[in-house]
Amino acid sequence: MNGYSVFCVSDHTGVTVESVAKSVMAQFPRLECSLITLPFVDSVDKVRQAVGRILDTPRPLVFSSLTDPQLRAVLRDAGIQTFDIFDLVAPAVGAALGQIATPSGGHTHGMAPDYETRIDAVNFALNLDDGLNPERLDQADLILVGVSRVGKTPTALYLALQYGMRAANYPLTPDDLEQGDLPALLTAHLPRLRGLTLSAERLAALRQARYPDSRYASLDQCRLELGAAERFFRRHGLPVIDTTRMSVEEIAAHLRHS
Amino acid sequence: MNGYSVFCVSDHTGVTVESVAKSVMAQFPRLECSLITLPFVDSVDKVRQAVGRILDTPRPLVFSSLTDPQLRAVLRDAGIQTFDIFDLVAPAVGAALGQIATPSGGHTHGMAPDYETRIDAVNFALNLDDGLNPERLDQADLILVGVSRVGKTPTALYLALQYGMRAANYPLTPDDLEQGDLPALLTAHLPRLRGLTLSAERLAALRQARYPDSRYASLDQCRLELGAAERFFRRHGLPVIDTTRMSVEEIAAHLRHS
Repeated sequence: MNGYSVFCVSDHTGVTVESVAKSVMAQFPRLECSLITLPFVDSVDKVRQAVGRILDTPRPLVFSSLTDPQLRAVLRDAGIQTFDIFDLVAPAVGAALGQIATPSGGHTHGMAPDYETRIDAVNFALNLDDGLNPERLDQADLILVGVSRVGKTPTALYLALQYGMRAANYPLTPDDLEQGDLPALLTAHLPRLRGLTLSAERLAALRQARYPDSRYASLDQCRLELGAAERFFRRHGLPVIDTTRMSVEEIAAHLRHS
Repeated sequence: MNGYSVFCVSDHTGVTVESVAKSVMAQFPRLECSLITLPFVDSVDKVRQAVGRILDTPRPLVFSSLTDPQLRAVLRDAGIQTFDIFDLVAPAVGAALGQIATPSGGHTHGMAPDYETRIDAVNFALNLDDGLNPERLDQADLILVGVSRVGKTPTALYLALQYGMRAANYPLTPDDLEQGDLPALLTAHLPRLRGLTLSAERLAALRQARYPDSRYASLDQCRLELGAAERFFRRHGLPVIDTTRMSVEEIAAHLRHS
């Protein structure tokens, strides 16, 4: 293997530094990379262990988000070149603010939804998954509507976990589609309805993985269901997201701002 | 309001730049900040709209992750100081690699679990939630064990959505706890069991929110259940995570590396 080992060293979960490393490495598309995250590296001893591991690895590339400048110094003193988020970004922000960054600022910022909000939102998404408990739809921030396997459940769960949003989801069954319009219990909440759709080919592939060679997974059936659902969406002017080429993050980001 | 408006301008979901902005702003703990994310800003027109909004806002602070240098230039030409991840981090990485970053590298990096893997993992977590389908436990990457309301379900879903990991979860009911040991269907999978626990006070508060003034939510009952569960964990040498002061990200990061 002659690729790079991209280390993400963090004194916390590593989510931020991983995300930066992935974005930046995507700008070097011809490099082969594997990602190794070292989270909770929050003491001199743990940094030394990380250093040992990095020095034992051929072609390492080290990203870090170590709040404590002393810990960053341990990496530097070992001769390891590090791309540290705080070294690279915080000084510029401090200069603009006319303030010096406080390494002890820690990870508790008031800008993330808190644990309870997110857990409540997860419970809400589970309780209102797949058309359950429609009498509670009025409590939803968003109601995701679409045919089976269009990605409603994972999207609702991601909105809950990432943003603390309460998203219900409602499946349009072949029965619903034959009724010729969205069920009345949905149209009562029009401003919060969001349609999800995708290409018939992609839907057939997703269904095929679950129920091979079924009518449910046939391209014809997928086309029929998607066509009817999209007509309903258009009739009511719903914001619609085509998830064919999207990741869960992308779908959620679109919905959050829709 | 004399706080700062922290804008996160992204040509994609904004997840990365938000995460950096939050980490960096946490180092300025005395500043009041509100976060405004502008995702999918991927054309000159959309950058101009963003510029308009930023210029209309008092005390803006602008973080960005705009892959295209031309789009970054539009912000700069409007006289807006921007902390851009690619400007600040990519050049240092490029210098170390002896390569120039390709703005068109895009967002598809091979290092993230793909859509199908994550969706399958979500379905797995839902199918094996709360002790369901125990005959499939051998397919799990991890099996989360703990008393009711300890955070098993959100953690399993987060592991699925973020990392594509297949996590089952199994609740230790008062009945299980009275048996004097972990159920045999769990001990058959010891290497993949992970115990979750938290403080009795915190558990009582979480249960109280759900079933006020119940025996289930009483501090005594919580102490009893947690004590028994922790004895089981110790007896079998399970890795145990105390989630009392942890976010879902932190719990998941610990589990991923446990």
